[in-house]
Amino acid sequence: MSKGRILSGMRPTGRLHVGHLVGVLDNWIKFQDEYDCYFMIADWHALTTKYDQTEDIKDNIRELVIDWISAGIDPEKSVIFLQSDVKEDAELHLLFSMITSVSRLERVPTYKEQIEELGLGNSVPYGLLGYPVLQAADILLYKGDTVPVGKDQLPHLELTREIGRRFNYLYEEIFPEPEPKLTKVPKLLGTDGRKMSKSYGNAIFLADSKDEVEEKVKQMVTDPQRIRLKDPGDPDVCSVYNFHTIFNESEKTDELAEGCRNAGIGCMNCKGNLRDVLVDELAEIRAKRKELEKNPERIDEILAAGAKKAKKVAQATMKEVRSAMNL
Amino acid sequence: MSKGRILSGMRPTGRLHVGHLVGVLDNWIKFQDEYDCYFMIADWHALTTKYDQTEDIKDNIRELVIDWISAGIDPEKSVIFLQSDVKEDAELHLLFSMITSVSRLERVPTYKEQIEELGLGNSVPYGLLGYPVLQAADILLYKGDTVPVGKDQLPHLELTREIGRRFNYLYEEIFPEPEPKLTKVPKLLGTDGRKMSKSYGNAIFLADSKDEVEEKVKQMVTDPQRIRLKDPGDPDVCSVYNFHTIFNESEKTDELAEGCRNAGIGCMNCKGNLRDVLVDELAEIRAKRKELEKNPERIDEILAAGAKKAKKVAQATMKEVRSAMNL
Repeated sequence: MSKGRILSGMRPTGRLHVGHLVGVLDNWIKFQDEYDCYFMIADWHALTTKYDQTEDIKDNIRELVIDWISAGIDPEKSVIFLQSDVKEDAELHLLFSMITSVSRLERVPTYKEQIEELGLGNSVPYGLLGYPVLQAADILLYKGDTVPVGKDQLPHLELTREIGRRFNYLYEEIFPEPEPKLTKVPKLLGTDGRKMSKSYGNAIFLADSKDEVEEKVKQMVTDPQRIRLKDPGDPDVCSVYNFHTIFNESEKTDELAEGCRNAGIGCMNCKGNLRDVLVDELAEIRAKRKELEKNPERIDEILAAGAKKAKKVAQATMKEVRSAMNL
Repeated sequence: MSKGRILSGMRPTGRLHVGHLVGVLDNWIKFQDEYDCYFMIADWHALTTKYDQTEDIKDNIRELVIDWISAGIDPEKSVIFLQSDVKEDAELHLLFSMITSVSRLERVPTYKEQIEELGLGNSVPYGLLGYPVLQAADILLYKGDTVPVGKDQLPHLELTREIGRRFNYLYEEIFPEPEPKLTKVPKLLGTDGRKMSKSYGNAIFLADSKDEVEEKVKQMVTDPQRIRLKDPGDPDVCSVYNFHTIFNESEKTDELAEGCRNAGIGCMNCKGNLRDVLVDELAEIRAKRKELEKNPERIDEILAAGAKKAKKVAQATMKEVRSAMNL
């Protein structure tokens, strides 16, 4: 029995933070032994909303690869590649665009949300409407049969499944029907208790230095009701505690919570503990980052090798596709 | 001073008739000496409305090339190529899809017409909405600066100009702003006086044999009021006269019209004259067709050579495009 094939990706929009680490990368790392993994840097997708901000895209791509590999994605085990290196993806996108209806795309729930969120009004890019068509091409081009998704991504994957089925029905049975793999995403908030996000300035990045991590932990927002050491605190409204639940051992975390509730431990101490845990957690990533930053040509090699492997699969699929469609 | 570059194409949807000859091909033949010509067989475009009828597409492509060359398109002078042989077109289409708005595409006048004409209701393919985006990619990929259009195609070309301008404004000045070349399209109707169309069974095809042409001329609809030879006729309602105005010498045509109006010449004679003119007009095309049909590998060679030339230009353009967009 052959392994399943996972297709997943990220847009190269900036440095990754620890939220990405525990929400995505830690899952990917586990998948590497169970699945045949294709991890894609989705630069074309980045254009659907940022077509006019492409100055940093090249740097972002390199930083993303460095983040991935430093976190434990292994280019020997997984195919790490750049979406736009495989032109067959654009071809399959074009062909899928003929068998997907406008009204179906308009019904994707995230579409209306995004228009509102981005304040697009009447100037929605055609490519934003077609985002799920490109996503279907991304997945089916590599015959991905397993796609790790969060709940909000399920409608997109459903459309991928529909497009694949429709192709199989109209022409020939070529594509698998990819199954969603709902992944556990621990609820990690930012250092100020809001959603962790680069734009909120409340994120701890994989690329942060030891000093930066220490400083950020020091600035973390705790229970605002706990003013003096002898006040009992509520860990459930404390962002330090939120971090402990994810990065610390559960026994230690319980002990710290208890100490907070009965004013047996102060916030400084509690933060000091988190600081050590986090610095330790990120030490290996930081070391690998340093090494990769010193060898920029290694990133080029990884992307070139990934593109080669991805293209081989893509070309084989497109040969089948063209033959099925009589093209 | 370098020659202008023309980009034009046809969908491979079936055999060409004499309407295509006088409406399109005769113009193309003239362009060959004045312009650098790229003539594209638009197989991807054929999918926008016929995605579920691809059985004949390969035959149609070959027949189209045979029709073109037999009519006088010269592969030594012009680049004759298949759209889908140049994957860069799909890539540029994808990139243009990010900078073109859905609402702009919905405003293209032919869009609503086509939905109605094809009875698509609520199932309009995404690729049909994006038809003008693909057309913009077709033209700008080869930096076509001149596009022969009928009046109904002007809105599509206007959108191509807009997309090119937008790209130039957002990134770098790469694309020319193609000018429309409004071509004279003689009003040739079918043998029954309706619009000439394969589906009406009223067309004379370039591939018709001498016997078929003769038979079709014999069956042509004349002035229904002229029942007997001595009845005067009205050339303006006679499809035979319509053909004379296009294929016969103007002096002879005037003489025949006069003879019709004063009952000096019968319909049989008038048709006999048209038959000779048409058979003669199509003789060379027929002879060239026969030769090409005997050498199928010649068509492969022409398409391979055309693809090579087209790809070279396309690759150079995409190199500029990617660099301008920082991809």
